[in-house]
Amino acid sequence: MNDPTEFVPANRDLTAYVVEVARAARAASHAMAQATTAAKNRALAATAAALRAAESEILSANRQDLAAARQNGVEPALLDRLELDAARIATMAEGVLEVAELSDPVGAVTDLAYRPSGIQVGRMRVPLGVVGIIYEARPNVTADAAALCLKSGNAAILRGGSEAQGSNQIIARCVRAGLADAGLPSAAVQVLTTTDRAAVGIMLAQSETIDVIVPRGGKGLIERVSREARMPVIKHLDGVCHVFLDDDADADKGFRIALNAKTQRYGTCNTMETLLATPASAAGIFPRLFDAYRAHGVELRGCAHTRRLAPDVAVASEDDWYAEYLGPVLAVRVVDNLDEAIAHIRRYGSQHTDAIVTENYAHARRFLAEVDSSSVMVNASTRFADGFEYGLGAEIGISTDKFHARGPVGLEGLTSQKWIVLGDGHIRE
Amino acid sequence: MNDPTEFVPANRDLTAYVVEVARAARAASHAMAQATTAAKNRALAATAAALRAAESEILSANRQDLAAARQNGVEPALLDRLELDAARIATMAEGVLEVAELSDPVGAVTDLAYRPSGIQVGRMRVPLGVVGIIYEARPNVTADAAALCLKSGNAAILRGGSEAQGSNQIIARCVRAGLADAGLPSAAVQVLTTTDRAAVGIMLAQSETIDVIVPRGGKGLIERVSREARMPVIKHLDGVCHVFLDDDADADKGFRIALNAKTQRYGTCNTMETLLATPASAAGIFPRLFDAYRAHGVELRGCAHTRRLAPDVAVASEDDWYAEYLGPVLAVRVVDNLDEAIAHIRRYGSQHTDAIVTENYAHARRFLAEVDSSSVMVNASTRFADGFEYGLGAEIGISTDKFHARGPVGLEGLTSQKWIVLGDGHIRE
Repeated sequence: MNDPTEFVPANRDLTAYVVEVARAARAASHAMAQATTAAKNRALAATAAALRAAESEILSANRQDLAAARQNGVEPALLDRLELDAARIATMAEGVLEVAELSDPVGAVTDLAYRPSGIQVGRMRVPLGVVGIIYEARPNVTADAAALCLKSGNAAILRGGSEAQGSNQIIARCVRAGLADAGLPSAAVQVLTTTDRAAVGIMLAQSETIDVIVPRGGKGLIERVSREARMPVIKHLDGVCHVFLDDDADADKGFRIALNAKTQRYGTCNTMETLLATPASAAGIFPRLFDAYRAHGVELRGCAHTRRLAPDVAVASEDDWYAEYLGPVLAVRVVDNLDEAIAHIRRYGSQHTDAIVTENYAHARRFLAEVDSSSVMVNASTRFADGFEYGLGAEIGISTDKFHARGPVGLEGLTSQKWIVLGDGHIRE
Repeated sequence: MNDPTEFVPANRDLTAYVVEVARAARAASHAMAQATTAAKNRALAATAAALRAAESEILSANRQDLAAARQNGVEPALLDRLELDAARIATMAEGVLEVAELSDPVGAVTDLAYRPSGIQVGRMRVPLGVVGIIYEARPNVTADAAALCLKSGNAAILRGGSEAQGSNQIIARCVRAGLADAGLPSAAVQVLTTTDRAAVGIMLAQSETIDVIVPRGGKGLIERVSREARMPVIKHLDGVCHVFLDDDADADKGFRIALNAKTQRYGTCNTMETLLATPASAAGIFPRLFDAYRAHGVELRGCAHTRRLAPDVAVASEDDWYAEYLGPVLAVRVVDNLDEAIAHIRRYGSQHTDAIVTENYAHARRFLAEVDSSSVMVNASTRFADGFEYGLGAEIGISTDKFHARGPVGLEGLTSQKWIVLGDGHIRE
């Protein structure tokens, strides 16, 4: 609580503070649900302008955050995510403008049709209400998440990592300036001003005022949020993604997809972590593919069959089939056929993203139907599982749950549909 | 545990039993997700036939249930819900056949479109997995819920009220016969064979194997389930529904809708519990409307303004604005205008179903946009908020939550959508 960015008076009760923030968000959510598209876009444009104008202040706060984090022995990967520069601030502002360009989901009416009784029944898309975002070091999440919640007509409560608190508070000020410019309530986007970890637990108990929680960060954070939250959570725990090279895989497509799915980026949740192949595909594709992996510095860990084909491959243990390496390591297993591949994915996978490479129509159809993951692909790299690639424009997160939203979650996932009924004095007989 | 319908061996561990049931359901859910429409419809037709064939056995078990319930001093309303006769069994069988006629939601692909990268992206509708239903006395829920879960490709675990245990077990046997006839796994629909209340708590902890819980029954049950469930819950707590007679209400439409919404059925969740009216509408519509209510034996409880218009109306207390009477009682309040009506609904309502009666275009549009309930109506009776009336065919329940499903929940609410990606060797650049 001695953090210099700690803005909550020390003698103030933490629970009372979080409850007050949540109540203010609930009140603001009513105004946000009715805000016009024009007002929301104006707030986003003004936020982007404020971010650009505040560049030096953000950089200065960020330098202080970085210095404190280094002093506290924060690991280099986290320092990298924490660090902002002029280019990253420009990207942040552009991201906010891109959200302004997305079409407004709120109020869209679909399926309005007459029923035999004479009433017209349809569905109207409405905001969820108050969205709580709990995230770790990346300060750009503050701007991204605020923009998505704002555009979808929700109020947002953001609780960033303590390491980024100084940066986040300046970014929050820019969002408030944007809201004020459009005449929208400043409580529509609130960044908690405390870094006390207990505030997270208090937030997760406010089921009366917070409608949904989106945790973004490491597995520890997401597990804690899932365990404690008394409201729905949009989350993904693991990305143990598979590519399966079927018997009828085109060798060139298989090579390109398996290489891209592993090496295009290592640290993302849609990166392949286990490669599966039938014996024929393994014999035909592994030699060239493994050479390419070695050239990229990817460490391979294989089953016995794989190691007969490539004796220099390390032995994979049972743990490797469950592993999300998030780095240049790949588990490789030869399976007898499609059935065994599907069984492996069901047993060890995380229902995130799985792909088959095949020219066989029936196998493609079965894989699509039987693999129960948030994204299932044929002849495409798992790296495509992403809100931008899917045309959502931006994503608040990726859900591996089935309830409500699944896969990349964009503006639509932050909304719900209510029923509307239009009559002309109709009564039920 | 001395219940004659208690089929679990007394020495068997209850937790082990429930865990085993849930695991068997999970295993069956994979087969159900892949079951063809023809197989599912065949299972439903065979279930309906088995229900008809078992009429005398069901009636005999039901008579025993009723006798035991009477002995235990169960209240008359519950006895009525528990009681089956030949007509009710026929209706149950017809209901199952009607579900067979609904179109199969599973596997439906929507929005499949090319992205700039060249991949095709769409969504495929898939079952949720394992659905747990916890309900009270009505044995017909056993057949209804089983049919909806079966058709939507889910496995179901049903836990009915102990009073109906004998009836439920015979109905469960009919469903198993239907599943067997279609070659589907018998564990796809399991009715718990224990009436031990502790089994509910154990079920609610099985978040690894049960994907969603649907409680159906009184408020106590639903509150307990919401509090204890470690998985998502589809539920509604209250139905405090409003009809608002706007200044520009057509007097005849207002009369008919307000009368129908209260008196067509008293015990349903979409029945109006509070009538709101502007002073002009109150003056114009209340006299004839109140006469009609009195003729129906409806007790009125009003605000001071209402009682100036009709001095024989009882005084409404603050509690009346929150009340779900589920009977022939109505709270009546005169509000200044549309804003006050919306504010009243926001404060006291349960976000279930609310209707405005108006000929004013702007007011209708505002009411539709600003009232945040699962069903919002213009010039129609709240009694229309129902899966059959909305064209869903049947409903597993009504949700007043915003997450996942809202309002009447039919087959679609028991499914989710996964993303599918079709490529031809596409990789991410």
